[in-house]
Amino acid sequence: MEETFVPFRGIKNDLNGRLTCYKQDWTGGFKAGFRILAPTTYIFFASAIPVISFGEQLDRSTDGVLTAVQTLASTALCGIIHSIIGGQPLLILGVAEPTVIMYTFMFKFAKDRPDLGSKLFLAWTGWVCVWTAILLFLLAVLGACSIINRFTRIAGELFGLLIAMLFMQEAIKGLVEEFRIPERENPNSIEFQPSWRFSNGMFALVLSFALLLTALRSRKARSWRYGSGSLRGFIADYGVPLMVVVWTAISYLPAGSVPKGIPRRLFSPNPWSPGAYENWTVIKDMLNVPVLYIIGAFIPATMIAVLYYFDHSVASQLAQQKEFNLRKPPSFHYDLLLLGFMVILCGLIGIPPSNGVIPQSPMHTKSLATLKHQLLRNRLVATARKCMRNNASLGQVYGSMQEAYQQMQSPLIYQEPSARGLKELKDSTIQMASSTGNINAPVDESTFDVEKEIDDLLPVEVKEQRLSNLLQAMMVGGCVAAMPFLKKIPTSVLWGYFAFMAIESLPGNQFWERILLLFTAPSRRYRVLEEYHATFVETVPFKTIAIFTIFQTAYLLVCFGITWVPIAGVLFPLMIMLLVPVRQYILPKFFKAAHLQDLDAAEYEEAPALSFNLATDGEMGRTASFADDGEILDGIVTRSRGEIRRMCSLKLTSCTATPSKEFRSLQSPRLSDSVHSPRISELRGEQSPRLGGRGPFSPRTGEPRPSNLGKGS
Amino acid sequence: MEETFVPFRGIKNDLNGRLTCYKQDWTGGFKAGFRILAPTTYIFFASAIPVISFGEQLDRSTDGVLTAVQTLASTALCGIIHSIIGGQPLLILGVAEPTVIMYTFMFKFAKDRPDLGSKLFLAWTGWVCVWTAILLFLLAVLGACSIINRFTRIAGELFGLLIAMLFMQEAIKGLVEEFRIPERENPNSIEFQPSWRFSNGMFALVLSFALLLTALRSRKARSWRYGSGSLRGFIADYGVPLMVVVWTAISYLPAGSVPKGIPRRLFSPNPWSPGAYENWTVIKDMLNVPVLYIIGAFIPATMIAVLYYFDHSVASQLAQQKEFNLRKPPSFHYDLLLLGFMVILCGLIGIPPSNGVIPQSPMHTKSLATLKHQLLRNRLVATARKCMRNNASLGQVYGSMQEAYQQMQSPLIYQEPSARGLKELKDSTIQMASSTGNINAPVDESTFDVEKEIDDLLPVEVKEQRLSNLLQAMMVGGCVAAMPFLKKIPTSVLWGYFAFMAIESLPGNQFWERILLLFTAPSRRYRVLEEYHATFVETVPFKTIAIFTIFQTAYLLVCFGITWVPIAGVLFPLMIMLLVPVRQYILPKFFKAAHLQDLDAAEYEEAPALSFNLATDGEMGRTASFADDGEILDGIVTRSRGEIRRMCSLKLTSCTATPSKEFRSLQSPRLSDSVHSPRISELRGEQSPRLGGRGPFSPRTGEPRPSNLGKGS
Repeated sequence: MEETFVPFRGIKNDLNGRLTCYKQDWTGGFKAGFRILAPTTYIFFASAIPVISFGEQLDRSTDGVLTAVQTLASTALCGIIHSIIGGQPLLILGVAEPTVIMYTFMFKFAKDRPDLGSKLFLAWTGWVCVWTAILLFLLAVLGACSIINRFTRIAGELFGLLIAMLFMQEAIKGLVEEFRIPERENPNSIEFQPSWRFSNGMFALVLSFALLLTALRSRKARSWRYGSGSLRGFIADYGVPLMVVVWTAISYLPAGSVPKGIPRRLFSPNPWSPGAYENWTVIKDMLNVPVLYIIGAFIPATMIAVLYYFDHSVASQLAQQKEFNLRKPPSFHYDLLLLGFMVILCGLIGIPPSNGVIPQSPMHTKSLATLKHQLLRNRLVATARKCMRNNASLGQVYGSMQEAYQQMQSPLIYQEPSARGLKELKDSTIQMASSTGNINAPVDESTFDVEKEIDDLLPVEVKEQRLSNLLQAMMVGGCVAAMPFLKKIPTSVLWGYFAFMAIESLPGNQFWERILLLFTAPSRRYRVLEEYHATFVETVPFKTIAIFTIFQTAYLLVCFGITWVPIAGVLFPLMIMLLVPVRQYILPKFFKAAHLQDLDAAEYEEAPALSFNLATDGEMGRTASFADDGEILDGIVTRSRGEIRRMCSLKLTSCTATPSKEFRSLQSPRLSDSVHSPRISELRGEQSPRLGGRGPFSPRTGEPRPSNLGKGS
Repeated sequence: MEETFVPFRGIKNDLNGRLTCYKQDWTGGFKAGFRILAPTTYIFFASAIPVISFGEQLDRSTDGVLTAVQTLASTALCGIIHSIIGGQPLLILGVAEPTVIMYTFMFKFAKDRPDLGSKLFLAWTGWVCVWTAILLFLLAVLGACSIINRFTRIAGELFGLLIAMLFMQEAIKGLVEEFRIPERENPNSIEFQPSWRFSNGMFALVLSFALLLTALRSRKARSWRYGSGSLRGFIADYGVPLMVVVWTAISYLPAGSVPKGIPRRLFSPNPWSPGAYENWTVIKDMLNVPVLYIIGAFIPATMIAVLYYFDHSVASQLAQQKEFNLRKPPSFHYDLLLLGFMVILCGLIGIPPSNGVIPQSPMHTKSLATLKHQLLRNRLVATARKCMRNNASLGQVYGSMQEAYQQMQSPLIYQEPSARGLKELKDSTIQMASSTGNINAPVDESTFDVEKEIDDLLPVEVKEQRLSNLLQAMMVGGCVAAMPFLKKIPTSVLWGYFAFMAIESLPGNQFWERILLLFTAPSRRYRVLEEYHATFVETVPFKTIAIFTIFQTAYLLVCFGITWVPIAGVLFPLMIMLLVPVRQYILPKFFKAAHLQDLDAAEYEEAPALSFNLATDGEMGRTASFADDGEILDGIVTRSRGEIRRMCSLKLTSCTATPSKEFRSLQSPRLSDSVHSPRISELRGEQSPRLGGRGPFSPRTGEPRPSNLGKGS
């Protein structure tokens, strides 16, 4: 995306790009069939549960003017609109914590003003939304999003980790609360006697940890040893929601021996109860707001605009990271414009607006990648099996698989990847054949493990479509009606789920990996390389990594501290935006360009040839660590990795016992070629007992190596 | 051990054998220095904690005539005696569950007899002990133990699993109890109000699961990525006791907000409180027991004798399994004789007798194996490093390592292993050198990972000595004095510890592995082979494995059921003894000899040449699975595995990313040779993408292969 500030150009480009693939966005979704429900439910829970508990929070802090009903309504409404006429359908919208903080602050302000009061509060926020929208329009029109490229991974990952910290904080705060008497409750009622309060707290501990542990386990189900493949797949896809249901059911077991209020459950009015919907007609009050306040509304509006501009863009960016190899174009400007309209809409009907949320958006893309992988996999496996039944040769099998793969490609292709996909497939066929030497001999299951081979060949691809987003938004809307059932969920299960989301968002965050690296015993640092092919460990001196990471951590803690500041708190995004100039102008003074490339590749920096390889090599780190996510563990495999795996499997399939460990990004074919041939020699090399076999580095020491990559010993 | 029933011969042989190494038993122990404390504390907790809670159980069921003080005293006394003048110092003695059941039954019997009553109960049990001892003498003298060879692994492992089930049952029962009002307590006291009872139950859940999880984790500390090696080692060695302390401390955190009785803690009188020690003088009452009862005491005595004969021998056997490669001779007969004396002693001072316990005894050997491994490792690493500083060649390094290894061998060697140990060490040097080709080139850390190489080379060896046993027994004795502190431990922590012990005893139990195999998806069965080199999976048709395992499981459940039968329950060992004839005469009718060899190698069965290889190959299964024990995870590695690893590392060190996975027993050098060369060809084999690289099997299907093992493709 070039940086253009010519008015409307960004929006025009986005629209052109997305319109071409709009039809395919739908057809592709429906083609996936019922399997689309896996990512849908996964994301539905990930976005509904926080929204509900944010709603509860809002309920407490606005004396019930806004409740979970409103937050759910906003999330559903904006979600549906965005999924239908939005630009990037991978982006998930929802009412986020910062919005809640802003509204809390505005309510406090309004309540203390006699000529405003909590009666006109919603009307006033209507005006705030109007101003916000206007600012967003300006930003979108003037192409403010084109500087999104300057948000390098240092900013994105720091923000991601910050969000994870906030979620974890919510979880801990919530658990502690379980031992206390909640506000707005009658402290004399039986369940708040010390003994029952203690019981409730302990029960909450049990439930939340049980949910956290079982949910984390179930995500890894695909790599379990037990149970049939279909069962494992089901658990991996639906395990988390399943666990929420299971533990909610279990929370009713002791119902006989405990008073009604234990464990505490979600609190929210039913949408049809009086007071829950009187705010829908806020628009008619808007003119009753004193002019002074209408103008004053501009101040909070700026804050919210900045916040949304940043949140929305970064969420969208994180959902479209390189290693997902998306085929369809981004749409930052147009989405920001649309967000403006949605903000006005929400303002006029008196509900808090939604914006792009983290970590749900990247989670959404990840789950769609797994989906796509499964679809491709099943199709190819079927094809291969068919061929093998008419005992075809290896060459024929691969040939037919290529065909099938080609057929399954979406008609419109914006980048080479898929083109390369075919090429790679062919290459590896040739390699495979030549190396095994029996290209014409018929193959059978026993000599040739189709599923593994295919896992090796398949690239990371994402099922880019609008259906999952639309469905999840509609399901969120359904929650408004399903409130009576939702209220059965114990709050402690929510806290466990918050912790789960925080932890789920960590793998793939290289910043996080580097923090861990600081605590890793030197003798074991090479393990990092075994887990994620994180090249920076090889190419950057540990001291540099440490300094860089400590700086980043300090910065993170400052941001986290700021979120505690009563009002300015919502402006923590400004801190992160500040990282852009810091990264661009200050960091280069302290770190070597090549090192910065490995630690935080930035497009605007011209990189030397070698370190460019390394940089993209660094991408592997990111890609690989996604694979660490249990869901994808025995799922996603990139093509080039397939190549390497092929090399291994000739020697020793045991190395395939750790799938998704070696990874390659698709960014530079140069890389896979240049590094590749030496790698073969490595694997064959008689005199390299010390090589990790994972790549060009000495696995023991994690020390950098001269750039003649992979020349063993 | 030949089967001899000539009176006293067995005892004589044992004495001769043990006396020769008696001195070394002590010197070896002291040579180990303070490191001996690791296995000592580990075993101390493993034997003290159950004894204490058995004591509590006895306390309830004998109206306080016998308490934890007596069980601890008995355990300590017998432990000290056995560790000093006993035969096999690896055997751990303690008051076991069956003893408790017997005493409970006898107390009920005595109480109902007016002319006996609870007053003369202990005196009467004195007579029971006398009779038991006489029977044990007879069994020992007549060489009953020499049939111990007939207890094949089917019996041993079934018994082991049964004990694990009983421990787990204790844990669950205990946890459920936490929600109820205990007997002998005043149900009106505050902590038994419904609310507090519920709190207590939930608190117990938290504590016990917390202990279980953290304990299991800490055992794996050596393979952690974080923290310094020494810290990791310390946690792995002392983590479990540490966790007991930690969670006991944490259990006091809410002390302010809960009544005194929550959480419930150990109950036991202090040894100096009246009534705790009046039973020491039981001997003077023994003649007051009516003659009829003195004779009648013979009946329970027979039961106890059978029980002890079996328990003691099997515990000793499990502590001396083949794959530990013990250098010192067993001592079944003499130990049984000694047990007789100890039973009398205990009877006369009115405390329940102790006998060899499972799983503590095998746990003891395991922990000593790790100790020995560390001692060897440190020494060899030091030597190698020294050499490399005077940049020696690979050949020299190995040479000096051989020397050091030789020096560290205990002077007296009863079996070849260590002799072979040296040979192997030389072999692998040659191989290593020849394969890498640079035997004379100087080596340095970067090219040559000493610690890994040494891990590969070191055999499984056990630090056989008496010190750890003596110390742990004395510490148990110390518990009697430390009772006031022990009483601070929450009972829920005990239940967690029981579960921990049950789980710790599972890895290494091939029966258990086979049960898991039944639930493993066919496509993933090969993973079993990756984890434990369990040959039977390759050589025995799955159907046969399934039938065999289901039969064994059914038998296990019957035994478990019997333990629930009020009185006959203590005789469940008879059921397991029954397995001997079943295995010897009935099973061969239903299973092929070769298959039985793989599933349950028995010495008395003449095995065909091939299946002998397989049988010993099967040993690997056992050995390997020990390695799964986190403690040993990055620890024990057998020699021959070193060989294979070397082969791998030439190709792809990534396979070393899973240490302690491929394993070889030391039973047959023939094997490692015979299987080996083909295996190399496998690893080199250009056309074996399908081979697991772990061994001669098709890793995908886990199906058996024709017996030309490892001929790739």
